[in-house]
Amino acid sequence: MGITVPTKRSVGGQVMEYQARGRYFEDFAVGDALVSARRTITEADVVLFAGLSGDFNPLHTDELYGQTTPFGTRIAHGLLVVAVGSGLVNQAGWFEGTTLALLEMTTRFVRPVHFSDTVHQRLEVVARKETSRPDRGVVTFGATILNQRGEGVVEGQHVVLLRRRPTE
Amino acid sequence: MGITVPTKRSVGGQVMEYQARGRYFEDFAVGDALVSARRTITEADVVLFAGLSGDFNPLHTDELYGQTTPFGTRIAHGLLVVAVGSGLVNQAGWFEGTTLALLEMTTRFVRPVHFSDTVHQRLEVVARKETSRPDRGVVTFGATILNQRGEGVVEGQHVVLLRRRPTE
Repeated sequence: MGITVPTKRSVGGQVMEYQARGRYFEDFAVGDALVSARRTITEADVVLFAGLSGDFNPLHTDELYGQTTPFGTRIAHGLLVVAVGSGLVNQAGWFEGTTLALLEMTTRFVRPVHFSDTVHQRLEVVARKETSRPDRGVVTFGATILNQRGEGVVEGQHVVLLRRRPTE
Repeated sequence: MGITVPTKRSVGGQVMEYQARGRYFEDFAVGDALVSARRTITEADVVLFAGLSGDFNPLHTDELYGQTTPFGTRIAHGLLVVAVGSGLVNQAGWFEGTTLALLEMTTRFVRPVHFSDTVHQRLEVVARKETSRPDRGVVTFGATILNQRGEGVVEGQHVVLLRRRPTE
């Protein structure tokens, strides 16, 4: 379901026609489920995430150390998996141009993600509420990232502040 | 307080002397507070995080769009700020070589982080419990990332599975 209602916004006195691809608050109903595309988590992703975050915990960067852990090898940073999940969701376009902010997340890292695992994200609308401001609303999603065996690796909730559909 | 108890671990038949810099479960008491170093969040960090995560939401990558939001400009990805916070914590060494896993996080994005803001992370031990396994324990930290004005930008909790101090 593509949402392509153009909305006019003034930027520096210049009126822009912004073609929002995302869904507005009104477009989400409790029980709606959204499934993202997939992405393979690679060693390169883990190396880049270590460099960007500064998290060089040996769990992620020292193979010999990894062999001494319950996982038996290096594993991906849990936050990298969450970040990739957020990217998959954004690439789907559901929130593009209509999200005002991610307000809150709960995140349980229930299984390790190994290099070469392929993940996708599933969102399900569990609650929605209007706010005191007529131009925005809050939607709560159950959020699960699953691996190639359909096992949940990250489970939790996302609370998102969305624009409401502009009135003419 | 540096913890430098060497622990011998066998990797592929080869005994390694691993000098764990991190703290063990026993080294955390309820009420202990830990404050990380700081880091400035730059436009380059945001660009790199967009490329790695795949999250090119215009909130983070389109300055003209940013000017139409309540923030008035592009802001950093909330998950980038969390990732940088995790890096600052790891660089402090408190968890290096003693963390088995980050089990759970709750994260509230309470203020935007603008480019050039400088953040640090504060952890406070709020609970600790032994597990059925004698070699590990679980510590819950209140976790706040603060900006250069001392305002919380990310608030929540981290639940961490830690090694217990090895017995001789």
